[in-house]
This record gives sequence, structure tokens and C-alpha cells, in this order.
Amino acid sequence: MNSLKKLNFCIAILAITLFSCALQAQITNDITSNQALKVLLAAKAKAETDNVLVNIAVVDAGANLKAFVRMDESYLGSIDVAIKKAKTARYFNIDTGKLGELTQPGGIIYNIELTNNGLVSFPGGIPIKNKEDKIIGAIGVSGGTIEQDREIATVGAQAILN
Amino acid sequence: MNSLKKLNFCIAILAITLFSCALQAQITNDITSNQALKVLLAAKAKAETDNVLVNIAVVDAGANLKAFVRMDESYLGSIDVAIKKAKTARYFNIDTGKLGELTQPGGIIYNIELTNNGLVSFPGGIPIKNKEDKIIGAIGVSGGTIEQDREIATVGAQAILN
Amino acid sequence: MNSLKKLNFCIAILAITLFSCALQAQITNDITSNQALKVLLAAKAKAETDNVLVNIAVVDAGANLKAFVRMDESYLGSIDVAIKKAKTARYFNIDTGKLGELTQPGGIIYNIELTNNGLVSFPGGIPIKNKEDKIIGAIGVSGGTIEQDREIATVGAQAILN
Amino acid sequence: MNSLKKLNFCIAILAITLFSCALQAQITNDITSNQALKVLLAAKAKAETDNVLVNIAVVDAGANLKAFVRMDESYLGSIDVAIKKAKTARYFNIDTGKLGELTQPGGIIYNIELTNNGLVSFPGGIPIKNKEDKIIGAIGVSGGTIEQDREIATVGAQAILN
Repeated sequence: MNSLKKLNFCIAILAITLFSCALQAQITNDITSNQALKVLLAAKAKAETDNVLVNIAVVDAGANLKAFVRMDESYLGSIDVAIKKAKTARYFNIDTGKLGELTQPGGIIYNIELTNNGLVSFPGGIPIKNKEDKIIGAIGVSGGTIEQDREIATVGAQAILN
Repeated sequence: MNSLKKLNFCIAILAITLFSCALQAQITNDITSNQALKVLLAAKAKAETDNVLVNIAVVDAGANLKAFVRMDESYLGSIDVAIKKAKTARYFNIDTGKLGELTQPGGIIYNIELTNNGLVSFPGGIPIKNKEDKIIGAIGVSGGTIEQDREIATVGAQAILN
Repeated sequence: MNSLKKLNFCIAILAITLFSCALQAQITNDITSNQALKVLLAAKAKAETDNVLVNIAVVDAGANLKAFVRMDESYLGSIDVAIKKAKTARYFNIDTGKLGELTQPGGIIYNIELTNNGLVSFPGGIPIKNKEDKIIGAIGVSGGTIEQDREIATVGAQAILN
Repeated sequence: MNSLKKLNFCIAILAITLFSCALQAQITNDITSNQALKVLLAAKAKAETDNVLVNIAVVDAGANLKAFVRMDESYLGSIDVAIKKAKTARYFNIDTGKLGELTQPGGIIYNIELTNNGLVSFPGGIPIKNKEDKIIGAIGVSGGTIEQDREIATVGAQAILN
């Protein structure tokens, strides 16, 4: 297959993909903009109910920032922590709290937090899955206790399924 | 639930939230979380109407990230550009396009873009003012032409006044 | 002009400045330039009394650098440590030494120091509050023992209340 | 000379140096903490007289931050610009505005601003000299027009000589 054929082939695939996506976004494995906002608002509503001030970040399947909101009076330092929690959760498809069990002194991936321009290995980052159980992104929450952050992130991630 | 229903759902949640907060906001000179989301959604709606794919960032009075959303299929490289446009607009209380008139070769602040971990000096970043004409934050839009980005940012910034 | 005269000169200028600004300050929840200088000089005077050589940084409510001074012969490496201590204290509204109790191996936020472009989690950073008990910024001190740094920072932060 | 002797030798030199410095700081070619504060306050007083809102930074002979102050409501983006102006002025012992004449497209040191983690090549940074005409540090001012910044920096630098 020469270059031109390859290009045509790619364009054809792209055309088909775009067409089928136009009807129903859900079949792709990347979180949509509206889904990300839905996750964000569900997590924010949960945080408001619990009276916790948090930063909430959503990244897409490529671990790139998709949506973000910072509640008033929440920690300034939690902006970066929330984004890094979301990225960490998607980088390794893991609950960030579980990652932390492996990164302690003596742990099998000790100090992996130093890679990727800084990872976060305590709770509050969770992968987001669609109804087909495929990971389509991740959410990171920071500002409350680690238990609160994880709970808010979980509520956010589950909003996709409703 | 199709896309339209999803959008309506988001708007409904947002409307309720905005209403319950309407009484206590506006008194400080820092953008609130709900104002930032309102700016974001107004800019996104404008972009959808114009059929432009953009990233939209809102920073607060301290130039810290307050809210962000990336439209589907918009440029990945525009995530950072949108955030830097918003920061630049607040760093110097200026329409980023006007800054660019001064930073060209021979300009009075040539190469200032190299400070502050990278500034953006073309259109798409605009300060956000409240009804008392005080700057409370800034919006940055990236992904369309510079004219489109500036127009979408303007619509977003003005949503505060409605 | 010898050192003592120079110091008196500085204090005199400062006193005049503070007096002329006394009427309009305090109403916002952000530290003013003159308050920051007052904090700086109070901390410096304490360090001189204790015969400790330190760097002293003050950040505002947005965690942006507001004032800084480095004592002669103090550690060069303490410039960045002092600034990061102040930022950390404001990022999380906490005495940096208390943060450190949570970031040790096995701690609930182990390795959070890797976020926000580097945090400092040992003593010497303290939030600055106004008379209404609102956090308006933070001070970071580095160069002495951690006990000395914390004590100097505390004296600095309390200068706001006099 | 073995290690122990070398150490004793160093300590002896240090003791002599400290002793002679204690009497008259001026003989060294590095700006002192009190001189830096004097420069800072003189520049601030000039800015207040001129009704300009600026950030003012002073670096020592080693181009390390020695003192800093940000006036209320001055540009957030000027924190970094002021510090980089001071560093640039000391890095090359030059008025930053003069450097800019050489860094334009076609200039002999085109784009040198990209080195040293970011230089500033427009006016506002000036070396500070002592009475013996030795460079002992530099001042950087940012927030006004480039003419205002340069004038305020000049007044600051000259305060050393009074």
C-alpha cells in the first residue's frame, strides 16, 4: 500500500467514524464535552451537599484536560492536585489511592510520582467508564479529606451511567 | 438520553445552582464558581452556533484556573493556549490581541511572551468585568481563527452582565 | 551612613507610608503592599535579635509574591525554599510543618510535595490573618533551624495585628 | 596541606572576613540587605509620586533575588517581568533597554531572550553601582510604561549613592 492509498484509507475510515459518531456519540471510547460537564456538575453537587470545598478536573481518554471547575474558597493548591489526580488515574487506569499502596518506600514502584511531571498517589482520582465498561477518561477531586475526595470523584464518575 | 436532552439537563442543574447563589454573590471582586461556569457555557453556546471547535478557560482575579471546557475534536494544542490566553489577559488586564501589537519586532515590549512561563499575545484572551466595571477574572478561547476566538471570548465575558 | 542609621532611615520612611495608608487599608481580604513590608521587617528584626540569617517571603491571597528580603550571608538555596514555604502555606491554608505530618511515607497525602511545581512540607510557612481572622496571605522563612524559621514566621505574621 | 588544615585555613579566612565586614559592609562588592531595602523603598516612593503601579525587584551581585515588593493593584504579570529585568541587567551588566537594541530580528544577539530561563530586553532593568562605581546588583521595575519603569529603576539604583 503506497502513501496515497494509505491516506485515502485513513480518510475513508475517518469519514465512516465521523458519520456513525454524528448519530450517537456514546459508541466512541472518549468522553464527550457534555459528558465531562455532566460529571463535573454531579461531583460539584455532591460536594455542595457534603459541604466540602473542592477542585474538580476531568481528563479525556488521551489524559488531556477536558473540563475543570474550582469551588469558591477551595484550596488554591488543589487546582494542580485535582488535575494531576485525574491524569494519574488515566495514565495507569487506576484509583489513585491504590497506586499509593505501591509507591511507598520499599514498594515495587517506589517514587513513581516523580515521573510524568508529577503524579498523585493518594485517593481522589478515578477512571471514568462508559456503559460498555470501557475507560473513556478520568476524574480528579481535591480539597476535602482523601475519603471525601474519593467519594465525590466516584459520584462524578458514575454520573456517566445515568 | 440524546445530546439535546443532556444539554438541557446540564442547563437545568446550572439554572437552579445559579438561582440559589444569586443572593450572596457579586459582593467581592473575584469571579465566583457559578459565574465562571456561566461564562464557560455562554462561550460554548456561541462556538456551537458558529460551528467552531474551541477550548475555553476562565481564570479568577488571582489568575488561577477557575473553570475549563474542551469541545470535542478541538485542537489538543489549544488546551494550553486557551489557559495561557486567560492568564495573560488577567496578568496585564488587557485584550491579548492588543498586547500583541506591542510585542512585535521593534515593539516596546518585544518578546515579553517569554516571561511568566509563556504568554500568548494574539487575540482570544479578554478580562472579565463585573457590573461595577471591576476586573474579576479573564477568559481565554483557542481553536478557531483569532477573530472567532476573540468573538467567542467576548460573548463569554459579557455573560456576567446579564 | 552606618547600618543603624540606615535602618532608622528605612523605618522612618516606612512609618510615614504606613500612616498615610492606614485609613483605606484592611477593608479587602488581600494583604496590602505596606502590610507585607511590615510583616517582612518584623520578621527580619526578630531574626536579627535571634542572630539567625534567613530569607523571608510574603505572598498575597492569590499566592503571588508580594514582598521578599534576603539577609546578608543567608543561604542562597533558601530563596526558593522561603518562597515555596509561603506559597504552600497559602495553597492549603496551613502551617507547613503540619502539612509535613501528613506527607511522610505511609501518610495520607504522601509525596504531595511533587505537585504545584514543588511544595515545602516542613516548618517555616504560616498563613497571615487579619484582625477579622480572614487569611489574607502567607509568610515563608528559611535559613535557620526549622524551629527558628517557624518562630520568625510567626512573629512576622502577627505584626499584622498590631 | 591535608583536609583538616585546609578546613582550618578556610575557617580562619572566614573569621577574618566576617570580622572586617562587621565594621563596614560597604567594602564588599555585593549589595547588602539594607541597601536593597533602601533601593526598593526609594523606587516605591518615586512610583507613588508618579502615580504608577509597579513591581520592584532587586538582585545581588550573584543575580539572586535580594528584595522585592509588589504595589497593590499592579499587574500580576509584572512580578516575573520585574525579577527577570533585574536578573537580565546583572547577567550582562547592562540597561535592559540597551540589550533590546541587539536582540531584534537581524540583530547580533537575536533571540538571546530564550536563554537563562527567559530574559527581558526592554527598559526597566538597571545595574546598581556603589560609590566606587562597582556593580553590586541590579534593579528591575515593571508595571508602568517602559519610560516610567526605567525612570523609577534609575531613582532606585541611585538611592545607594545618597
